[in-house]
Amino acid sequence: MTKELIGTAIEVDDGKVTLSDFMGSDLSVVNAARVSFGKRKTEMDEKDVKLIKYLAAHKHMSPFRHVVFTFTLEGVSEVVCRQLYKHQVGCAYTSGEFKEAATTWNEVSGRYVEFDPEFHIPSEFRKQHKSNKQASQEGELVESNDEARAIYMNAIEHGFSSYKKLLELGVCKEQARMIMPISFKNALVWTASLEATVHFIKLRDHEGAQLEIRNLARAIKKLIDPICPHSIEALLNSEK
Amino acid sequence: MTKELIGTAIEVDDGKVTLSDFMGSDLSVVNAARVSFGKRKTEMDEKDVKLIKYLAAHKHMSPFRHVVFTFTLEGVSEVVCRQLYKHQVGCAYTSGEFKEAATTWNEVSGRYVEFDPEFHIPSEFRKQHKSNKQASQEGELVESNDEARAIYMNAIEHGFSSYKKLLELGVCKEQARMIMPISFKNALVWTASLEATVHFIKLRDHEGAQLEIRNLARAIKKLIDPICPHSIEALLNSEK
Amino acid sequence: MTKELIGTAIEVDDGKVTLSDFMGSDLSVVNAARVSFGKRKTEMDEKDVKLIKYLAAHKHMSPFRHVVFTFTLEGVSEVVCRQLYKHQVGCAYTSGEFKEAATTWNEVSGRYVEFDPEFHIPSEFRKQHKSNKQASQEGELVESNDEARAIYMNAIEHGFSSYKKLLELGVCKEQARMIMPISFKNALVWTASLEATVHFIKLRDHEGAQLEIRNLARAIKKLIDPICPHSIEALLNSEK
Amino acid sequence: MTKELIGTAIEVDDGKVTLSDFMGSDLSVVNAARVSFGKRKTEMDEKDVKLIKYLAAHKHMSPFRHVVFTFTLEGVSEVVCRQLYKHQVGCAYTSGEFKEAATTWNEVSGRYVEFDPEFHIPSEFRKQHKSNKQASQEGELVESNDEARAIYMNAIEHGFSSYKKLLELGVCKEQARMIMPISFKNALVWTASLEATVHFIKLRDHEGAQLEIRNLARAIKKLIDPICPHSIEALLNSEK
Repeated sequence: MTKELIGTAIEVDDGKVTLSDFMGSDLSVVNAARVSFGKRKTEMDEKDVKLIKYLAAHKHMSPFRHVVFTFTLEGVSEVVCRQLYKHQVGCAYTSGEFKEAATTWNEVSGRYVEFDPEFHIPSEFRKQHKSNKQASQEGELVESNDEARAIYMNAIEHGFSSYKKLLELGVCKEQARMIMPISFKNALVWTASLEATVHFIKLRDHEGAQLEIRNLARAIKKLIDPICPHSIEALLNSEK
Repeated sequence: MTKELIGTAIEVDDGKVTLSDFMGSDLSVVNAARVSFGKRKTEMDEKDVKLIKYLAAHKHMSPFRHVVFTFTLEGVSEVVCRQLYKHQVGCAYTSGEFKEAATTWNEVSGRYVEFDPEFHIPSEFRKQHKSNKQASQEGELVESNDEARAIYMNAIEHGFSSYKKLLELGVCKEQARMIMPISFKNALVWTASLEATVHFIKLRDHEGAQLEIRNLARAIKKLIDPICPHSIEALLNSEK
Repeated sequence: MTKELIGTAIEVDDGKVTLSDFMGSDLSVVNAARVSFGKRKTEMDEKDVKLIKYLAAHKHMSPFRHVVFTFTLEGVSEVVCRQLYKHQVGCAYTSGEFKEAATTWNEVSGRYVEFDPEFHIPSEFRKQHKSNKQASQEGELVESNDEARAIYMNAIEHGFSSYKKLLELGVCKEQARMIMPISFKNALVWTASLEATVHFIKLRDHEGAQLEIRNLARAIKKLIDPICPHSIEALLNSEK
Repeated sequence: MTKELIGTAIEVDDGKVTLSDFMGSDLSVVNAARVSFGKRKTEMDEKDVKLIKYLAAHKHMSPFRHVVFTFTLEGVSEVVCRQLYKHQVGCAYTSGEFKEAATTWNEVSGRYVEFDPEFHIPSEFRKQHKSNKQASQEGELVESNDEARAIYMNAIEHGFSSYKKLLELGVCKEQARMIMPISFKNALVWTASLEATVHFIKLRDHEGAQLEIRNLARAIKKLIDPICPHSIEALLNSEK
């Protein structure tokens, strides 16, 4: 049985995404679509694969909502998390927000090497895309990677130490955190139906998307592929 | 483990509701709410029960959306099914509609005893409520139960045989079915989050609701109670 | 201004659908998409039409959710109403259900001509489709239309008079109504975003759909077309 | 008529929220709830107010979804915007994200006085709450307000100038923006039903909420109060 997939994790965005729970399979889609016939199948055959393709092609989406996944994202930058908030129709999430996360930062020293687990630090800096204002140029890195990294690290260190100074002055966390860099890492539990999850993959695994988010979409696809391969394929093909 | 609960069924409305699948437990709620602390608990303790009560009381509902159930309803009248369509936020359903169901009726003979599995036949006829136009008087039955039953059965028999006559004339099913009695039975797969399920129970398990729907709400509560008892109790108490 | 469109009605399914209220226009879509530029346009130009096409083609759907319509359906059969319940994501509806409607039937006499406003009575009976079990053969009517109509009317009359007999015996309405024919007419208020409305039109205005529902989809398209023609065209083309 | 309310704005969080559009009123709620009676009222009376109270008290929420508002938020910090993403059920939003906003910053000079319209700068710094880790102590300010402000401004200036240095090195915007302080201001169009809007007000206008968000909740309440005062009052009272 595939229940052993629960707990599988893939590294993304120098954090990781874990398949924390799920229910259903390709068979759940088939059984839901055939509910009026009064039989529950326990094994897939060719006819079932055809049915799944038919449902996706004709946008009969309701059977694809009985398969549900829960993902836990840890150490993923806020920028990435925000994309998931936007796929909330048919989804639910619980976010460990900055406010709470801040309580655990007391232990973090001022040196940036130690921030590493707390802020997203790119290993490579990509060039700006020439025509698309919102994208990077695939595969092209800036010449001065070290210089970029030094500026980046220094900015995070400065932001974080300013945050701590404000706390020392007695400023409330909800105001002090406003100067923290947006690259702080977040934790998130995201529950979504098969339909919503594949919709996210479709929208985010393409050229125009930010690389970090594209990587997340690919990791999620990899995690759920063994659970309902026929449905995923049919849904991905249906809107092309 | 509670996974053995999958497949449990309870009879309602002379049909039945089955817990076909589920994921999560009280621990899922707790772990989602504490996602930023980076630890997943595997056993509940007193603090966790308190946290669940706190979340429900303060309407932090998102952690309750990571527990999800799939119910299959068979032999349940359309009137009851329609109530579930209305709780679709955070839910999904696949209905075996009349149209398809009709295809299996070819085997049903004209005698009403044989309709029994296809139409909802009340065993007892309740009196109209004196003040509430939309309800029945709890526990009070009409004097002439046999007479009521005869009228009811005759009406169903007449509706169904007229339907068959129209089909014989070559009338399309989508028009012929318009004269079928509303008591025909339906099959339905309903997937809903813990939050949505408890919201349904809260709205339907009370005096003003139709008895058949109230019975369904109670059956559903019974089916899910062993899975996340603390969350259900906390949510039911939170809006009183 | 287009606000004078409020109140426009189109006859469908021997009932009617009215545009009861709406907000927004093509300009709302454009202004939402350009919110970060801090200017609100008050007149459309070529660039805006291009932007709308781009948004639809790339499935940036959120700007299309700021245009919202309210439709009131009266005298429309329950079968048609049910299709709208299914498009509830991003929608809301309030249904005048059978239960309440029943209270106004006291004035209706037993003669079927008088049912006419209360039940859906087809003027023409279509033939069953040869290969598609769920559809009618477009444009082909049964030979014996009068005979079909007589059976249909008689079935409705029988169902309705049985319903009244049960009420006379003191049976509660919620049980008595179970023998009413499914063709009873309903009233419904349906509020949906532009995205959800066009999605409904797309799914229902095609060959496989029941004619009555297809007619509703077409009527709704006609009602909203003057409000945001560019968005509707772009959305209808985007998923082909 | 109240349509002249469109365009009304209230300042919040050193930005502003504008009622950009709306449809419906208390009468829409009443007419939706009474759809089956076939009459549309055009004036409220005592019975209608009672009906609204009854609907809210018994959680018949669907009639409250036919009143819809569109708000435009400008110059509001990302932290505040994020709260609105979470009320997406029954809502829609279009966010002018950082990425796009960045394109307009080329004109902004390096001096912090000129950032003022681009980042949220508190005029007063509140003390941390003694027991509630997530809140500030109402009405209590830190002693050294000027010092706090200097640290805050310096941090923003440093973050922003680092961002510009990375762009000069050719780093793509999607990576460079990761070091920007979270206090950057955003623009957002938010469309929500009356039900969802009041739910947001209820959750956010209370002691535990961040002051900036509480102020937004209050501003939104003020903007919509003239449109449907009875419904707002009934909904706010219903869950106490």
